[in-house]
Amino acid sequence: MNNQPQTLLVPAAQMQQEFARILVTQGFTEEKAQQCAQIFTANSTDGVYTHGVNRFPRFVRYVKEGFVKPDAVPTLKSAFGGLEQWDGNLGPGPLNAVHATNRAMELAAQHGIGCVALANTNHWMRGGTYGWQAARAGFVFMGWTNTIANMPAWGAKDGRLGNNPLIFALPFREEAIVLDAAMSQYSFGAMEMAQLKNEPLPQYGGYDKNGQLTTDPGAVLESRRPLPIGYWKGAGMALLLDLLAAVLSGGLSTAEISTKEVEYGLSQVFVAIDISKLPNHSAIPRVLEAIISDYQQSIPASDKNKITYPGERVLEMRRKNGLAGIPVLKKVWEEITQL
Amino acid sequence: MNNQPQTLLVPAAQMQQEFARILVTQGFTEEKAQQCAQIFTANSTDGVYTHGVNRFPRFVRYVKEGFVKPDAVPTLKSAFGGLEQWDGNLGPGPLNAVHATNRAMELAAQHGIGCVALANTNHWMRGGTYGWQAARAGFVFMGWTNTIANMPAWGAKDGRLGNNPLIFALPFREEAIVLDAAMSQYSFGAMEMAQLKNEPLPQYGGYDKNGQLTTDPGAVLESRRPLPIGYWKGAGMALLLDLLAAVLSGGLSTAEISTKEVEYGLSQVFVAIDISKLPNHSAIPRVLEAIISDYQQSIPASDKNKITYPGERVLEMRRKNGLAGIPVLKKVWEEITQL
Repeated sequence: MNNQPQTLLVPAAQMQQEFARILVTQGFTEEKAQQCAQIFTANSTDGVYTHGVNRFPRFVRYVKEGFVKPDAVPTLKSAFGGLEQWDGNLGPGPLNAVHATNRAMELAAQHGIGCVALANTNHWMRGGTYGWQAARAGFVFMGWTNTIANMPAWGAKDGRLGNNPLIFALPFREEAIVLDAAMSQYSFGAMEMAQLKNEPLPQYGGYDKNGQLTTDPGAVLESRRPLPIGYWKGAGMALLLDLLAAVLSGGLSTAEISTKEVEYGLSQVFVAIDISKLPNHSAIPRVLEAIISDYQQSIPASDKNKITYPGERVLEMRRKNGLAGIPVLKKVWEEITQL
Repeated sequence: MNNQPQTLLVPAAQMQQEFARILVTQGFTEEKAQQCAQIFTANSTDGVYTHGVNRFPRFVRYVKEGFVKPDAVPTLKSAFGGLEQWDGNLGPGPLNAVHATNRAMELAAQHGIGCVALANTNHWMRGGTYGWQAARAGFVFMGWTNTIANMPAWGAKDGRLGNNPLIFALPFREEAIVLDAAMSQYSFGAMEMAQLKNEPLPQYGGYDKNGQLTTDPGAVLESRRPLPIGYWKGAGMALLLDLLAAVLSGGLSTAEISTKEVEYGLSQVFVAIDISKLPNHSAIPRVLEAIISDYQQSIPASDKNKITYPGERVLEMRRKNGLAGIPVLKKVWEEITQL
């Protein structure tokens, strides 16, 4: 392709240091700045630039504008056995989510299964982060967040649903299998990137302003009608995930969040299961290997197709970016270094 | 349409009586026959014919052939707090699933959240049945099952994944909001019905034998390449749901089930949350009304579109079929009455 934007390769350590430096100037303690910088960097190393380096300037802007409170920590609202509600107090989304994931694991260790529902939190960036966190610690994880309205109901043309990512994760080998799926076929970040590169979407990504399905990212960005995964199914799932997040946390729904000036005050759910408590625990690695081995014996539809499990390409990207540095759009890195 | 197959209208009470009569001849106790007949009838009343009346003859055949054991009941394998493993002992899938849902609710009442993982069970027919069951009792429900391999991995052409339906449900008004979504865009039952009626699928349902996306149900039935919801996303979710079902229950995976002569010995997961334990419990109906009200204010994309929430059309169908009788293909009802 011509028209490719210029990129730099930034080593992860340098990126993290730069993020941490900026966050300290925004009122983060050194420890919290490092934690947050580590998450934004890891998301970038893993190739999820839209919720890593590319998103960092907006995160800093939300801190400056008071939507994200650097010194806030989650507080317990209610507890009953393995089910707890926490208030995120509008603290940094990634730090609140790490806390909620840890607490869900503690509850699971005590009760077999634990659920933390978190109100008044902020964008957790990549939901997969918390799947990797729990799975690496040996737990099964399920979690989801609501978002600002960005997707129409099925059959509608105005956005009333969030794309509400849903995460499933479990430990595998030394790492994890992690599925991190928004209920829209493509994220707005992914469509913006494709538009920037003048590339069509690989599959229909939504409707154009005339109501025709299209692979043109610009047409979907203009219509604001991204396609839900599985049409009515993904739209229905997005609605249910929002209902459950609001009900379980006692926090805001997508409709309520969408009345605000920017996306903040989200509701999230974190479920962990302690599989070390299962009598078949020692057999689990063998069970997983057998399933993945069968899966990998799939016959590719063409020479171009590689059959990977969710999280597998993340590991490849992590290795590659860890060695070569993280590719960053030149203008994004310039904006960050001037923060 | 010409070429419409002939249908009868069968009153629900008559259908249930007929099912129960047949099941008693197959070794079911009167009580279990009635329970099972009630579920098959309710699925039909709700319009899910593929997992109600249309499926009943195959259910009876599996009982006759010994895959479904009419007198088997689930037994506890392991328990830790809110997390339990049960063995379905190859009993009737719907009865095992009702039992597991009840047990998950008991665990939730005690621990806030409860999870029952069930091994060696059989097809639960409509997953939504257990969502309605739990939600009507006041609980949030999440559950899923694995199936025999019937869908390729993303990028593959041979079926190695199940379409593994995932259910989310919660109480709403006097009833429930229930999402029941298989990971394939259309079930094989739905595609067979469209083929029978000579109707195209409303959206792409899979690939034809030349690897082209198609709305022709016959072409997908021939290729055995149904489309996962959201392409790679639904395929990934199907894999994760199978991994989790096998790990949590200690039961069989899709790959293992697929080595058998027919689909039996499934693994399922039932999670219930007792929302009566939440301090915001009395506010929940108001929260749900506000979200659904906003959702229903969506602007339809065209005059044809009606914006409904998951489960809403089931309620309409339940009312309609309850009054008029359940439409049944004449040849299906003749087959059943001769059992």
